[in-house]
Amino acid sequence: MELPSTTLSKAVEVLSSLPGVGKRTALRFALHLLKQPPHEVADMADAIHRLTTDVHYCRICHSISDSDLCPICASPKRVQSIICVVENIQEVMAIENTQQYRGLYHVLGGVISPIDGVGIRDLNIASLIQRVQEGNPAPVEEVILALPTTMEGDTTNFYLNKQLQPLGVKVTTIARGIAIGDNLEYADEITLGRSILHRVPFGQ
Amino acid sequence: MELPSTTLSKAVEVLSSLPGVGKRTALRFALHLLKQPPHEVADMADAIHRLTTDVHYCRICHSISDSDLCPICASPKRVQSIICVVENIQEVMAIENTQQYRGLYHVLGGVISPIDGVGIRDLNIASLIQRVQEGNPAPVEEVILALPTTMEGDTTNFYLNKQLQPLGVKVTTIARGIAIGDNLEYADEITLGRSILHRVPFGQ
Repeated sequence: MELPSTTLSKAVEVLSSLPGVGKRTALRFALHLLKQPPHEVADMADAIHRLTTDVHYCRICHSISDSDLCPICASPKRVQSIICVVENIQEVMAIENTQQYRGLYHVLGGVISPIDGVGIRDLNIASLIQRVQEGNPAPVEEVILALPTTMEGDTTNFYLNKQLQPLGVKVTTIARGIAIGDNLEYADEITLGRSILHRVPFGQ
Repeated sequence: MELPSTTLSKAVEVLSSLPGVGKRTALRFALHLLKQPPHEVADMADAIHRLTTDVHYCRICHSISDSDLCPICASPKRVQSIICVVENIQEVMAIENTQQYRGLYHVLGGVISPIDGVGIRDLNIASLIQRVQEGNPAPVEEVILALPTTMEGDTTNFYLNKQLQPLGVKVTTIARGIAIGDNLEYADEITLGRSILHRVPFGQ
């Protein structure tokens, strides 16, 4: 589609780089922005630009933060002896939303994936091992692996477990099973099988 | 959802103002941007910001343009005696894409809609009448109304026709009928009825 303005073309081009956004949606976004008050559009441009300048990552858990120490790592109320290992920042937010976890996190920044060229050194694995070894500020008693159930996630789980076990720390993974509200009939066999193997006492 | 960074929160907030984008998609956009090279994100911010500063509207047809005269109005190759009236810039682009129209355009910027508080003075109607009256650079022979088939579109069509007829210009509307590839069985009665009334000689 040829656009009558190079400024509009450029805006459509950059907006269509967003995930799941094609040229048509990008054009819809751009034309919507053209109808908004200029200060609101400038606000958006500024907020996007600040993503490159004002976002920090926690030096301990590598989660996103306003400073170099995230609110979770800085909080004295969190249980310092448990670390939950996740792939990305999204999972930190998702787990925080459950309000079921009071320990700390460690964001790997991905999972081991030779096909995508992601190796052990591309991930925040060394700093995880160091956290467990140093036990600072408190000794780490448990590492919960909350990585995706993909081949890459399993590979990463396996590698992490191999590295962590010798350090004398308890390594666990999150429970896999039938999602609440899901129909047993339509569950895949592996999940259903695991949910029977890992059954828990009634009422727990 | 509480986000661990105010910069991220702000980005999610502004991105969720885009049409059809909720908090969850906005977060996906923001986290995607965080993973991109900073210069690309800065590029996007700049392209959005320039929508407020570098976009011009054609002084003749009110379409979007790089300068105050759009390429269509400036082109000597276009038929100067036909003006196609459309609601928004999108329709200009859609009609241009068909490559079936070689005349000029006039972008109203909306349709008459008392419910939304859009009246005659909010639209580029006076300048359309003036274009037809002045007949500059060439006398206008035909005005094609290509507005949406809604009550507001019809009201606007009716008003424009009333204003234009006394000026001795031919007023037409685009053909309504069964879309190519559409099944007659599922067409609505009004469209099907009109497509029979406005039938055309075979092969045309």
